Amino acid sequence: MLKLHIGNKNYSSWSMRPWVLMTQAGIPFEEVLLRFDSFDPDSQFKRAAEALSPSGTVPVLVDGEQVVWDTLAIAETLAERFPECRLWPADATERALARSATAMMHAGFGALRQHFPMNIEAHLPEVGARVLREQPAVVADLERLLSLWERLLGRHQGPLLFDHFSIADAFYAPVVMRLVTYAVPVTPRVQQYIDAVRALPGVSQWISGALAEHDFRPFEEPYRDAQDQA
Amino acid sequence: MLKLHIGNKNYSSWSMRPWVLMTQAGIPFEEVLLRFDSFDPDSQFKRAAEALSPSGTVPVLVDGEQVVWDTLAIAETLAERFPECRLWPADATERALARSATAMMHAGFGALRQHFPMNIEAHLPEVGARVLREQPAVVADLERLLSLWERLLGRHQGPLLFDHFSIADAFYAPVVMRLVTYAVPVTPRVQQYIDAVRALPGVSQWISGALAEHDFRPFEEPYRDAQDQA
Repeated sequence: MLKLHIGNKNYSSWSMRPWVLMTQAGIPFEEVLLRFDSFDPDSQFKRAAEALSPSGTVPVLVDGEQVVWDTLAIAETLAERFPECRLWPADATERALARSATAMMHAGFGALRQHFPMNIEAHLPEVGARVLREQPAVVADLERLLSLWERLLGRHQGPLLFDHFSIADAFYAPVVMRLVTYAVPVTPRVQQYIDAVRALPGVSQWISGALAEHDFRPFEEPYRDAQDQA
Repeated sequence: MLKLHIGNKNYSSWSMRPWVLMTQAGIPFEEVLLRFDSFDPDSQFKRAAEALSPSGTVPVLVDGEQVVWDTLAIAETLAERFPECRLWPADATERALARSATAMMHAGFGALRQHFPMNIEAHLPEVGARVLREQPAVVADLERLLSLWERLLGRHQGPLLFDHFSIADAFYAPVVMRLVTYAVPVTPRVQQYIDAVRALPGVSQWISGALAEHDFRPFEEPYRDAQDQA
């Protein structure tokens, strides 16, 4: 049985990607939670993560001797191992496009990630509006992101980025959660995409898990005090 | 014919990856230089790059209608299209490990990249020593990087990260250049790896191209004035 080691569902955007991918694609796995007690070197989380892989981070996919410790490496490894799940588009040109869009998320959008950390249970529209006023780098990231989505969504009838659910949607699912938390204004087409992603069973199960945690972690909360928590 | 659009060879660490990969693997391509005149929105570079792909960055691989605009997407696309080049290790567990190590470079080591920008023709040992004294995040990145390399290199006899040249070496080649420029102290085993990577024909041809450029770009030079240039 594949084992996927993840962090807190409310906060760990990187963990969300392979969890959503595998759940949505119907790939069976055992989930192992490495709770974020802190990120200090002697924290339980860090000690467990450092013992698992050379990155000292989550997620990590373990399959017997095989240890895969990065979201994109996990996705490519699963795509190869479960071809029947069609995790990438079947057409070579579409696949190259999906890989480009996915890798762009993997290595990019740094300002968006820094100022809009994933926090599924939070609702922070005022923070969103303030960040959009004060951080031009976030605005630039959002413009590029949303125009990429518009371009991909405009090519076909379906609600997702490619003609069926793919690794690209799993990689952008945490961004969808950020847009919701920070109430970022979007076009109707992008709103449809956001709604479609949240309605995917793999995503809605992750959201339920996040909402059930009730595990406020101050170092993941630049914008809330513990007493603000719903 | 595949077309690879790249930036200045002295500075563009992202361009170096697929160029080295294709050259070393013997995959024919036409090189198109998008010179870094500046990164302003109305610069020639930015206008050309924005016209090529949704990222507005280099490298971009173009094959007829197919446009691949990220280094890792390019690498996976080439690995699939040219299986005879064995761009990933043949064994599944080794391949998962190679993908993890490569993806870790793709998305990580931010402090190392920020403080030690690639600058092949420069020799900046004093800057290297100062950064190592003043920037603990760079030291942490280097510790993680070098221990990963030691771990990979210690598993077999060859001088490279896996049993033959792979995408992982192409992705780490720009880091090798940074370690040389900033004279970062390393163990004998890592020094052997550095020497082996620099001696690869694909890498040494890139270095020759970088040294022949003589194109000092102030916005890529946090540590030198134009008059310091050799």
